[in-house]
Amino acid sequence: MRIGIVTAGGDCPGLNAVIRAAVRKGVLHYGNEFVGFTEGWRGLIEDLSMPLNLQTTDEILSRGGTILRSSRLDIRQVHGGYVKCMQTMARHGVEALIAIGGNGTQAASLALTEVGVNVVGVPKTIDNDLSGTDMCFGFDTAVNVATEAIDRLHTTAEAHNRVIICEVMGRHTGWIAACAGLAGGAHVIVIPERPIDLDDICAQVQYEWQEGRQYAIIVAAEGAHLPNTEWASPSRKLGGIGVALAKVIEERTGYETRSISLGHVQRGGTPTAYDRQLATRYGVAAVDVVNERRYGRMVALKNSVIVDIPLEDAVAPPRGVDAQLMGVITALRPPALKYSGLSAEASG
Amino acid sequence: MRIGIVTAGGDCPGLNAVIRAAVRKGVLHYGNEFVGFTEGWRGLIEDLSMPLNLQTTDEILSRGGTILRSSRLDIRQVHGGYVKCMQTMARHGVEALIAIGGNGTQAASLALTEVGVNVVGVPKTIDNDLSGTDMCFGFDTAVNVATEAIDRLHTTAEAHNRVIICEVMGRHTGWIAACAGLAGGAHVIVIPERPIDLDDICAQVQYEWQEGRQYAIIVAAEGAHLPNTEWASPSRKLGGIGVALAKVIEERTGYETRSISLGHVQRGGTPTAYDRQLATRYGVAAVDVVNERRYGRMVALKNSVIVDIPLEDAVAPPRGVDAQLMGVITALRPPALKYSGLSAEASG
Amino acid sequence: MRIGIVTAGGDCPGLNAVIRAAVRKGVLHYGNEFVGFTEGWRGLIEDLSMPLNLQTTDEILSRGGTILRSSRLDIRQVHGGYVKCMQTMARHGVEALIAIGGNGTQAASLALTEVGVNVVGVPKTIDNDLSGTDMCFGFDTAVNVATEAIDRLHTTAEAHNRVIICEVMGRHTGWIAACAGLAGGAHVIVIPERPIDLDDICAQVQYEWQEGRQYAIIVAAEGAHLPNTEWASPSRKLGGIGVALAKVIEERTGYETRSISLGHVQRGGTPTAYDRQLATRYGVAAVDVVNERRYGRMVALKNSVIVDIPLEDAVAPPRGVDAQLMGVITALRPPALKYSGLSAEASG
Amino acid sequence: MRIGIVTAGGDCPGLNAVIRAAVRKGVLHYGNEFVGFTEGWRGLIEDLSMPLNLQTTDEILSRGGTILRSSRLDIRQVHGGYVKCMQTMARHGVEALIAIGGNGTQAASLALTEVGVNVVGVPKTIDNDLSGTDMCFGFDTAVNVATEAIDRLHTTAEAHNRVIICEVMGRHTGWIAACAGLAGGAHVIVIPERPIDLDDICAQVQYEWQEGRQYAIIVAAEGAHLPNTEWASPSRKLGGIGVALAKVIEERTGYETRSISLGHVQRGGTPTAYDRQLATRYGVAAVDVVNERRYGRMVALKNSVIVDIPLEDAVAPPRGVDAQLMGVITALRPPALKYSGLSAEASG
Repeated sequence: MRIGIVTAGGDCPGLNAVIRAAVRKGVLHYGNEFVGFTEGWRGLIEDLSMPLNLQTTDEILSRGGTILRSSRLDIRQVHGGYVKCMQTMARHGVEALIAIGGNGTQAASLALTEVGVNVVGVPKTIDNDLSGTDMCFGFDTAVNVATEAIDRLHTTAEAHNRVIICEVMGRHTGWIAACAGLAGGAHVIVIPERPIDLDDICAQVQYEWQEGRQYAIIVAAEGAHLPNTEWASPSRKLGGIGVALAKVIEERTGYETRSISLGHVQRGGTPTAYDRQLATRYGVAAVDVVNERRYGRMVALKNSVIVDIPLEDAVAPPRGVDAQLMGVITALRPPALKYSGLSAEASG
Repeated sequence: MRIGIVTAGGDCPGLNAVIRAAVRKGVLHYGNEFVGFTEGWRGLIEDLSMPLNLQTTDEILSRGGTILRSSRLDIRQVHGGYVKCMQTMARHGVEALIAIGGNGTQAASLALTEVGVNVVGVPKTIDNDLSGTDMCFGFDTAVNVATEAIDRLHTTAEAHNRVIICEVMGRHTGWIAACAGLAGGAHVIVIPERPIDLDDICAQVQYEWQEGRQYAIIVAAEGAHLPNTEWASPSRKLGGIGVALAKVIEERTGYETRSISLGHVQRGGTPTAYDRQLATRYGVAAVDVVNERRYGRMVALKNSVIVDIPLEDAVAPPRGVDAQLMGVITALRPPALKYSGLSAEASG
Repeated sequence: MRIGIVTAGGDCPGLNAVIRAAVRKGVLHYGNEFVGFTEGWRGLIEDLSMPLNLQTTDEILSRGGTILRSSRLDIRQVHGGYVKCMQTMARHGVEALIAIGGNGTQAASLALTEVGVNVVGVPKTIDNDLSGTDMCFGFDTAVNVATEAIDRLHTTAEAHNRVIICEVMGRHTGWIAACAGLAGGAHVIVIPERPIDLDDICAQVQYEWQEGRQYAIIVAAEGAHLPNTEWASPSRKLGGIGVALAKVIEERTGYETRSISLGHVQRGGTPTAYDRQLATRYGVAAVDVVNERRYGRMVALKNSVIVDIPLEDAVAPPRGVDAQLMGVITALRPPALKYSGLSAEASG
Repeated sequence: MRIGIVTAGGDCPGLNAVIRAAVRKGVLHYGNEFVGFTEGWRGLIEDLSMPLNLQTTDEILSRGGTILRSSRLDIRQVHGGYVKCMQTMARHGVEALIAIGGNGTQAASLALTEVGVNVVGVPKTIDNDLSGTDMCFGFDTAVNVATEAIDRLHTTAEAHNRVIICEVMGRHTGWIAACAGLAGGAHVIVIPERPIDLDDICAQVQYEWQEGRQYAIIVAAEGAHLPNTEWASPSRKLGGIGVALAKVIEERTGYETRSISLGHVQRGGTPTAYDRQLATRYGVAAVDVVNERRYGRMVALKNSVIVDIPLEDAVAPPRGVDAQLMGVITALRPPALKYSGLSAEASG
């Protein structure tokens, strides 16, 4: 049996670990052969491929990115895309496809399934908000990269009595912000799931000065937004929510405020031990499901166990930060802070 | 309400994060006061303590070890230990105790509960094998430290065409070996739960030479043992299972073999982002349970959610590496390898 | 003898290591006593201080920032600043001052020396361009943080066939860009010492595509600037040189280009082993010079040896990237590349 | 011109960076061609080789080990070794050889030079004690790995009131022990250059308890030895100097003492930024010297500048820790400590 593998959408640490695990299990235990389609769905449209075997996947476990490269091209938007995909697969004698990707990729996989292509999905999103699975690989790496950055920001914020805002990834949900914020001991955590309350943020900042700490760390998900202000939808030109928040907070509290945006470093580089394991477990499970010819499924983590679910269940609105995690964030900060206006000291 | 906190047994990255979280939630939301008893149960026997408040717990989130220090003294072995413990608590006006520790500590907590002391347990073991919880903080850190070491060993093993054995912690179970071995791409993983099969190990080593890799990485839990050989129970003097395995493998296969033992670096230092979060969640949950006056319980992680269970359930034989994880390890290596004796090349 | 210590200007990993070393040597070997003046020169103007002894400096070796905090206040700009400084010193019985800081701080130290204050300087600048010394602590840490980020950017740039620009610190000189660019295998390195040649940059980018790599990493010092374009002096609003370069390169080459700015993470956090050593050596040397009552000097590294030089020699224009290092950068890239216009592929 | 490259002796982080830099400069600027001889001198005896060009050296900058692999085979010990070497070089049309290695390798290079082979040496030793150069690549990485381990040991030693000994590499000299010990804030540093004074060590340990710290970290170079005791020459079976010291110190002071040996993790894995740069600079310089046909030379770092020296000067006894560094170590500890026998507490 010949199996194709494709990685689509934004990259994540762990993609190569999935590929390696699927190929190893497939070759060593099922006698499968593999073809890698490159540059995401473009590989299946334009017939771009590379050989995948024990040799070509040998040293990629700890390597970030994807040896198959990726693209954001959506096969559903390409005229005649499904047919081209089938033709490419037929040309390579490929019976089934393992598609590693996020919401869009799984939706495309579902569409392909419906026209008769044999697909098994592997969930992937750095934001960790894909519906249908408890955890996506790459997320733990992103959280650790962000936490290490926040650790570093503490000492420089403290040295200069500053507010520093660290903008992290999270377009629709605040998983990275919540987890890295908790792990990094941030004083304020701003996520897209909750409307930003500027009074509350400024009150917390003021509290850190009143208590003698005299600096504050704020972690903000890029997707958070300021309602009803000139900064309501900060365009990229303006530098994102971090820059916007910094302006407003400095203006309101009088404390020197800086922001940095971690950007792509969160999604590159060698995966953490957890992400390598999770990705490996997904890869093994995906090739098992393919060899059982149970198509139209996506492997997923449910209560620490790898299962597989219908692709339909994966294609759903993003899963936001859960109530228990939000509760922990709330538990660590003082209740009922009230902002009392520009600080005397700062305004003096 | 005044609450005591004690950390007992071996240290783990995350102990300070538990302490900080319990104190923050307790002080800020319940108006609790805290006393830290130091050096494990000795603090309760000999009345050793330090103040715990927002200031003394302010900068400890990312710090390894425990500001309360620890010891392996078992209160159950101390003559009149329970009474002394109650007297110390009374002297400090402490109504309840949060006891952070492993199997022995939770057994002691259970015994104290039975004589009327109010205790809530927090699970801790670097080996991750405590019954009653899915995960212990510190474990993720240990796995990442070990994985990083294994990454480093790959390049030096490869440069010299060597077998290198990395001995990791795990007295009764092989969680660190299994997870770090998987994450580090080890060719052989040796754990206490399974009898060591020397033929199988040598066959795998031989395979790595035959396939052209010409080096091999073996990860072995310290608690694994060689049955029916002169190395059956390698005393500490002889250097542990790593040294023993190295001798046997080099002798049998003819390939140069070295071993290193990671030792205490696995349990020291700053915790990973995951461990800081898990520890924080435990700390918050423990102080909640105390304030609900539901004593004789231990907080635990079950299916990604923090719950609390009776202390009785925590005191059980260690939880070994599960079948699914073992299946993944098997999936990545060739089936049915057979050792064919000393390699021609090596013996030449 | 009582000695004051002050840290002024931007913070650097290693400041605490200087303080600790000076205090340890002074207390243990000379019987000195110490006072820490806080928040930079403000501490000497407004008499802000904290005790410095073996206890307060005990665990700070590996800690970023400065326990004395800092500020950018320039004592030379404060009316009556010198007198206030002398009064504060007198009030604390302080005979001499160790001033840890960059160009501005050493200039202030020189001015103070000239009015009779006993000062010994310790050089500090994250940019590593302070005249009079071969190396400043903190720089090695910044280069390693930047290199690790560049490592991570490689895999994500490769996965998406992108140009990624990493903007690093370096206002007047390109030491961090040059060293981290070399260490990270950047394809283009842009520094303030040389005018930006857009044709050359685009030619190098095009070359990476032509040779089959299909991605490129550019490291740019924040102080580099684009001459004779609308981006000549990119205001902070526009996002710095990284954002500016990204726009121009994407426009010219047609390849998708992104930029990130590492910002404050480069100057925070735990110092590397080298920076801890260098800082420790400076601290020990500074307290030696003070006890020899040789004031108006700055300790410095010259040919791997710690020496001391007149403060006059430290106050000079910044030291740029040297010719040998520039030669290595040039050596690794193809000579005489020529940009041949918008790539066919990208424009198609 | 065709050039051969060989890596001999123990591996070091940075070997690949040397290879890559030499090949890039050679191919791009001189039009050289390259052959890699594999497994150290064995490659030249048995004609084992691999192609070296821009493609095969493309992604190795950050990779530990050596793509050429290595061995400890000494060409001077092989009957007819020089002739075989010349024949292999002739067979490949190789005019000159770049030999990357330590003392033994440079001695072999000198011997080959004397029989007419064109060799240029690149210095390499993880111990940093090669005569003729100020610094060897790989050393900075080893020091950082050791320092990170020491950081981790602090917290676990503190949590348990223990003495922990960290044995690091350094057969003849204590560079790693001295630098990592300084950077890690070790309380005692033991190096081969100085006889071990057990009274002094125990006095320092006792001091740490008396001052209230109640734990101690000792860093010991593997080559240090205990004179005039049963542990005078601890065989490998007994576990090295760390194990030996632990026994003696625990016996004498009564404090619980543990030891770990870092072993091969110090020499594997990705190099630090500094090591990548230094290795790159050596590679570029070596290929320059070859193209200038100035054979019998070794590139070296002298006062921060890359120079080249006669191979004769490289073949000299190892360079020990210098006086200034020793002075800093002494400066940080109390003078004139005196061991007053088994501590009352510990013996109680």
